[in-house]
Amino acid sequence: MSTTNPANSAEPISKTRLRLWLKLLKASGEVEAELRRRLRVEFDTTLPRFDVMAALDRAPEGLRMSEISERLRVSNGNVTGIVERLVEEGLALRVAVPDDRRATCARLTPKGRELFAVLARAHEGWINDLLGGVSGDDLAALSGQIDRLMRHMGKE
Amino acid sequence: MSTTNPANSAEPISKTRLRLWLKLLKASGEVEAELRRRLRVEFDTTLPRFDVMAALDRAPEGLRMSEISERLRVSNGNVTGIVERLVEEGLALRVAVPDDRRATCARLTPKGRELFAVLARAHEGWINDLLGGVSGDDLAALSGQIDRLMRHMGKE
Repeated sequence: MSTTNPANSAEPISKTRLRLWLKLLKASGEVEAELRRRLRVEFDTTLPRFDVMAALDRAPEGLRMSEISERLRVSNGNVTGIVERLVEEGLALRVAVPDDRRATCARLTPKGRELFAVLARAHEGWINDLLGGVSGDDLAALSGQIDRLMRHMGKE
Repeated sequence: MSTTNPANSAEPISKTRLRLWLKLLKASGEVEAELRRRLRVEFDTTLPRFDVMAALDRAPEGLRMSEISERLRVSNGNVTGIVERLVEEGLALRVAVPDDRRATCARLTPKGRELFAVLARAHEGWINDLLGGVSGDDLAALSGQIDRLMRHMGKE
């Protein structure tokens, strides 16, 4: 691991890394807060509900509650409540799991898929606005940085 | 806003920004999960508790519960529970707020400060490990990117 610190030679590189981490948390928190606000104002919905729909949309064969909460790191109880509401509104349905008589899966209905497509399009547009400060080559550079970070973490 | 996409000319730049956002969320989620794990294993403590102590450490004059939860975006109820436990363990104390007879502030005791210093040192070391894939000039570049992103968001 490099210990030279071209960013600021007056402080150890561990401090610079710590500041980068705190800055990253703050920036992603701001983006997330703005996404929550827009979901509420424009669609009267919430980020956890959007995330559950996104997970279901990516799994046409359906997901168990435990699979949804693993993917999203929200509690099982919260996921169950959100899915129940989606079912009540005709946006999702519960289906039996072939190998497990007691478990059920949820999946989106065609109406749920249609609504999620609208939300996802809006969400992509918001991210495009909010991340508009990052453009062109910088996107590729940032993406490469994050890949390197993840590889480094995986190697530990 | 730039609409050219050198990262991948086959997709609109909004898709590339969306992928960057999802990748960023995933990476920060991994770092956070590892921090939670190390706090639990090495210090038998939690990330919300660490965050509350960090907020109190930065405010020697003390903070109200509402100020802590605003800074950390955790619910007031959670903050109150964490502070109560810190008080029971002699790591924090409640002090009266001069202008408001009903409100109280919390602040760290010397013992609390001492413990937080140990935790903060460990935390800085973990971040230095986990973000070890980002070194030298890349730290400055990334930091500049995030500044630009934040400025762009502020301007909207």
